[in-house]
Amino acid sequence: MKIAFIGLGVMGFPMAGHLANAGHDVTVFNRTTEKALLWVKTYPGSATSTPADAADGCDMVFICVGNDDDLRAVVLENIGALAGMKPNSILVDHTTASAEIARELHAACLQKSIEFIDAPVSGGQQGAENGQLTIMCGGNEDTYKKAAPVMNCYAKKTCLLGPTGSGQLTKMVNQVCIAGLIQGLAEGLQFAENAGLDVHKVVEVISQGAAQSWQMDNRHDTMIKGKYEHGFAVDWMRKDLAICLDEAKRNGSKLPVADLVDQFYAEVQDDGGGRWDTSSLKVRLK
Amino acid sequence: MKIAFIGLGVMGFPMAGHLANAGHDVTVFNRTTEKALLWVKTYPGSATSTPADAADGCDMVFICVGNDDDLRAVVLENIGALAGMKPNSILVDHTTASAEIARELHAACLQKSIEFIDAPVSGGQQGAENGQLTIMCGGNEDTYKKAAPVMNCYAKKTCLLGPTGSGQLTKMVNQVCIAGLIQGLAEGLQFAENAGLDVHKVVEVISQGAAQSWQMDNRHDTMIKGKYEHGFAVDWMRKDLAICLDEAKRNGSKLPVADLVDQFYAEVQDDGGGRWDTSSLKVRLK
Repeated sequence: MKIAFIGLGVMGFPMAGHLANAGHDVTVFNRTTEKALLWVKTYPGSATSTPADAADGCDMVFICVGNDDDLRAVVLENIGALAGMKPNSILVDHTTASAEIARELHAACLQKSIEFIDAPVSGGQQGAENGQLTIMCGGNEDTYKKAAPVMNCYAKKTCLLGPTGSGQLTKMVNQVCIAGLIQGLAEGLQFAENAGLDVHKVVEVISQGAAQSWQMDNRHDTMIKGKYEHGFAVDWMRKDLAICLDEAKRNGSKLPVADLVDQFYAEVQDDGGGRWDTSSLKVRLK
Repeated sequence: MKIAFIGLGVMGFPMAGHLANAGHDVTVFNRTTEKALLWVKTYPGSATSTPADAADGCDMVFICVGNDDDLRAVVLENIGALAGMKPNSILVDHTTASAEIARELHAACLQKSIEFIDAPVSGGQQGAENGQLTIMCGGNEDTYKKAAPVMNCYAKKTCLLGPTGSGQLTKMVNQVCIAGLIQGLAEGLQFAENAGLDVHKVVEVISQGAAQSWQMDNRHDTMIKGKYEHGFAVDWMRKDLAICLDEAKRNGSKLPVADLVDQFYAEVQDDGGGRWDTSSLKVRLK
């Protein structure tokens, strides 16, 4: 299949690689050309100097960029992907962005008889590298059925959650759950340390029961050590939480703890930790 | 082994039953006599009218009551357990209480050459009934080694965390982690509902990754349905969080989210939900 992949960040770079390794004819575009050149050296495939050129004549175009404005730039502008895409092709957006931009992109695609899926992912850099991402999709079922087998090149699970925007809304639920969860864990671990307990032993016991979480199982050790190198950065989490808090105002949800944790992440940024991973909340509590 | 069990609440009742069913010679005491009589009808064993009488001549005395003051009453007062216990016997306290009362009871035991273990449990009513509790112990290793095989009648895991009080401190870590975790989950589920998503589908997807927790796996369905009948009540959680927040002041920990969630639980109580289980935070967010 002829595929374009736009956005070669820590996620997009290996994701595009999985597509190329699976035998697809992949053309990439990245805003900074260096990464596109590195990608071409690493994987079978080619690079272009505009999204429109990358998308030209493709059956599917995948995007994984930073935020709503980046999406408008690489999709909707003169040299954006839509300018190159052909009718009946499919645009899949892996960016974590707002539900509105998903609807906006979908509407623009409809004008050109192009199909659209919003498809934010979870699983982090490691999941992208191992091809073990979870993909939360919004769109119509026919389009999803065509896109899912291709996404499976880098997914352990894909799911259609509902109409356009549902993928983004589901990713927001994910981030809201994580915010409270990590803060609770950070408070607990810090309490354990201050109480003079052997924190590893404590986790060994309490992870057997109702306090267990993926974060407890996979992050307690690095949180205790103050190592925050797990990829998904505080800067990105703040972008995601801003989207969540904005959408919550719209749909009438109250997110008091997500709001508070967002403020704690702002403090981590103030301390120069914007690139630390999301488990770095602990550092706020010493 | 000759054993006394003091406190036949939703936890103590089946725990004492497991000891009796395992062949131990069990005598029970409960403040309200009705439950003691029901216990004697249900399990092989006898009941007495004071803790001292129950503890008389026992090798081990187990306690599972409500709070620090209850403990002082059933252990330290004239007709308390210590008045009946013999030297070299062991007192095991399963109450979730403060680390101070653990040290206080330990000091009192020492005066009479009695050994002491603080041993709060997790696993809830169901864990007590199925004999699948997790037991967090504080005390010295020799005492623990003698007590653990007996506690295994109702435990899936027991662990010695450190000196007297360490069991209570570990239980506090557990409750602090749970507070943030449930609130994050409650906010996420409520956001999902308000966004018009199929909440079950959302959980199916996000529970595959970094948002996963025991609470998500085991409570999302009843939270969505607004059914809060899982035993461990908001009233008890508030008692536990009060102990945590008090200890945090002492050891210099900051627990901003545990503190906030405690206030939300107070609102649940105000709405008549004191006996609902701890997942009822969701109801605050509609």
